Amino acid sequence: MLENLKKEVYEANLKLVELGLVMFTWGNVSGIDKETRLVVIKPSGVEYEKMKASDMVVTDLDGNVVEGYFNPSSDTPTHLELYKKFPDIGGVVHTHSTFATAFAQAKVGVECFGTTHADCFYGCVPCTRDMTENEINTDYEKNTGGVITESFSDKDYNSIPAVLVASHGPFAWGKTPMKAVENIAVLEECAKMAFVGLNISSMTRTNQALLDKHYLRKHGENAYYGQNNR
Amino acid sequence: MLENLKKEVYEANLKLVELGLVMFTWGNVSGIDKETRLVVIKPSGVEYEKMKASDMVVTDLDGNVVEGYFNPSSDTPTHLELYKKFPDIGGVVHTHSTFATAFAQAKVGVECFGTTHADCFYGCVPCTRDMTENEINTDYEKNTGGVITESFSDKDYNSIPAVLVASHGPFAWGKTPMKAVENIAVLEECAKMAFVGLNISSMTRTNQALLDKHYLRKHGENAYYGQNNR
Amino acid sequence: MLENLKKEVYEANLKLVELGLVMFTWGNVSGIDKETRLVVIKPSGVEYEKMKASDMVVTDLDGNVVEGYFNPSSDTPTHLELYKKFPDIGGVVHTHSTFATAFAQAKVGVECFGTTHADCFYGCVPCTRDMTENEINTDYEKNTGGVITESFSDKDYNSIPAVLVASHGPFAWGKTPMKAVENIAVLEECAKMAFVGLNISSMTRTNQALLDKHYLRKHGENAYYGQNNR
Amino acid sequence: MLENLKKEVYEANLKLVELGLVMFTWGNVSGIDKETRLVVIKPSGVEYEKMKASDMVVTDLDGNVVEGYFNPSSDTPTHLELYKKFPDIGGVVHTHSTFATAFAQAKVGVECFGTTHADCFYGCVPCTRDMTENEINTDYEKNTGGVITESFSDKDYNSIPAVLVASHGPFAWGKTPMKAVENIAVLEECAKMAFVGLNISSMTRTNQALLDKHYLRKHGENAYYGQNNR
Repeated sequence: MLENLKKEVYEANLKLVELGLVMFTWGNVSGIDKETRLVVIKPSGVEYEKMKASDMVVTDLDGNVVEGYFNPSSDTPTHLELYKKFPDIGGVVHTHSTFATAFAQAKVGVECFGTTHADCFYGCVPCTRDMTENEINTDYEKNTGGVITESFSDKDYNSIPAVLVASHGPFAWGKTPMKAVENIAVLEECAKMAFVGLNISSMTRTNQALLDKHYLRKHGENAYYGQNNR
Repeated sequence: MLENLKKEVYEANLKLVELGLVMFTWGNVSGIDKETRLVVIKPSGVEYEKMKASDMVVTDLDGNVVEGYFNPSSDTPTHLELYKKFPDIGGVVHTHSTFATAFAQAKVGVECFGTTHADCFYGCVPCTRDMTENEINTDYEKNTGGVITESFSDKDYNSIPAVLVASHGPFAWGKTPMKAVENIAVLEECAKMAFVGLNISSMTRTNQALLDKHYLRKHGENAYYGQNNR
Repeated sequence: MLENLKKEVYEANLKLVELGLVMFTWGNVSGIDKETRLVVIKPSGVEYEKMKASDMVVTDLDGNVVEGYFNPSSDTPTHLELYKKFPDIGGVVHTHSTFATAFAQAKVGVECFGTTHADCFYGCVPCTRDMTENEINTDYEKNTGGVITESFSDKDYNSIPAVLVASHGPFAWGKTPMKAVENIAVLEECAKMAFVGLNISSMTRTNQALLDKHYLRKHGENAYYGQNNR
Repeated sequence: MLENLKKEVYEANLKLVELGLVMFTWGNVSGIDKETRLVVIKPSGVEYEKMKASDMVVTDLDGNVVEGYFNPSSDTPTHLELYKKFPDIGGVVHTHSTFATAFAQAKVGVECFGTTHADCFYGCVPCTRDMTENEINTDYEKNTGGVITESFSDKDYNSIPAVLVASHGPFAWGKTPMKAVENIAVLEECAKMAFVGLNISSMTRTNQALLDKHYLRKHGENAYYGQNNR
């Protein structure tokens, strides 16, 4: 069942590897079938290199496995919560990509510092509040979805399709599983740029004589670098 | 028409991918034909892997498409503005490469901190002023070209062939499209080196006994690392 | 003898290269045979590309070479010390991977800053105390094992399967040689994330007009980026 | 002439590319023939992909080209100065590798912060003093060699086989051209580790409940991650 969606979800999961966003079996992508409201998700702990499209697991929105011989990703209840509360989305992704995770661990949302961010996210990608001890100890993965959707009570999940879960890492979503992956890749790049920008301060520039020497040994009529001037 | 220039522009665009300066469809390179003053530019939003030389779009300096079945890059008006104001240049490139973009987002020009920079740029690669709300809302891409050329009112665009657009990212240019790409690659590397240099401070060095132990277990007559001492 | 374990140890050593955790001949992995209590370890200073499974060296727990034509890794006495004091482990690994080594050099343990860490390490990966000049000058590699096991006098080596040796670098262990490698890879990633997180501060976000312009030229009914709107 | 040394120098130059230490035509390696005191060096500005062993240029210690159809590297006088003052060395290399260059630009030597450094360098890899305007304007490349050897007036060039030229970048040397390349690669790695270590400070660790949850959902009898617990 849902063979096309399984293929889409499978390929979106492999895209995470191609984009360098995951190591080992970390990360998971799911997609939802709009008609049946069934969700297709990566199996838990299976290596990407050995994974096949037919290994994808099908669950209903309550988390019951409808088809599949593997356990679904242990983060499945988080995905399901997002599908329930964000009705427009078609795909969800979670990774532990380095820079977005570092912001999540610092409990700092990724602010919009420029157009790279603005091209994809219409404002700050928020960081959730800390989960309570009770939320952690009971239905942890479902409650992870809860703190995410809570963060969007005053935000539009369609125009800010990603979030950082405090002390954990990024989740993103989109119209399709592949679009969700694209969004989390942009978030990782924006987080990296933000990290770099936050650490730019001032240093003294090179003296003029050295600048002249190096520029002019490569450029202009007295250049002597390379073979062109023979 | 302009088949050679299309090939040049196409190859310069692919070079961006090879050099790791772009992700997805980000980035664009153009070239100008000196005789006809027609510009060849990457189509908007087309994947690099699927792009062919014949997909390049030809426009005149007013932005009218003269040949091509795709939309030109949405940044075309910025490129055109540069060709109009910087008559010596033959190619223009724009990327969102990580470190140069981070400096643009921090609104800090990349100063010359050493010879790597001086070999390519004869002084600070400047960061433009912020664009006004009016410049953003009307003819945004053309006005982006405007703040760039304004930054060069007291600078030589031939010897500093790149700029950072505040809150946006780097543009560079050169005698040819490929030379423009080379310049933006050097800018990215210089920005990375500047970032690292700006974050070097002091830490206490290792104690002498450990230094002796490690150096001398690999070097000198009592070395016992590796197979050589058998 | 111990051909299967040699193959396991050989493959775990190559995994270090694949994961980008070593350069040149740096790094070494060993495994212990639970029945004979013999240890199989990488030869010292042999290039990974030329290494064969049959090059692995077999030693007893006192460091006597039982089989092999190469010298064992010069860090062998450290491995042996860990096997003697941590009876449950089946494999040990040592690298100079960039970020974990930087924490070791800063003499700062890698605290648990989030779930990436918590998935693998049940608390701070500690940094040992400095070794004394005497410990360095006599039986250095054995004493390196000593400061490691000393760091675990109040910790469970099974649930925190890694350590940083001050001014040196990381060691990790696990049920098998490959599991030890996996643990040191996670430590490297957690150290990188910790480094990034420790350097996140605050910067002013982009103004609203630019955010609007960029988001809306790519999204919504007036978008004009790409080919879709033709 | 000197075909073996040409091959050695050629291969050492290519190793720079393999190790990711150079971009474009940057970087150069040379070797000296101990009998004839002739030096073999990379030609200036030739692309690595197109370079052949037979393109290497042979010069004498005064810089006269003895054999070769290309110009030698523009840094040749620096190499020659090192061969004259450091009689034991057999190879010299210069790169603009990112982290070592950043330290050179910050005018900070790479101190020994740990055993990775101590395995290769017996103490701080020094940074030269600034060159005077006069030294820059007359015989610049020769004088670059001069400030390097001046930095070693109180140091042993055999046990610290590398230097940072202020505002410029690293040079290294060794018994052979390939050994020189290995030394500059270790310097780059040590500089990277030093940069990271210099930027490690403190942050608050994760709360216990989250640590318990994540560790225990993957480990122990109640683990529910992956397929093993079915």
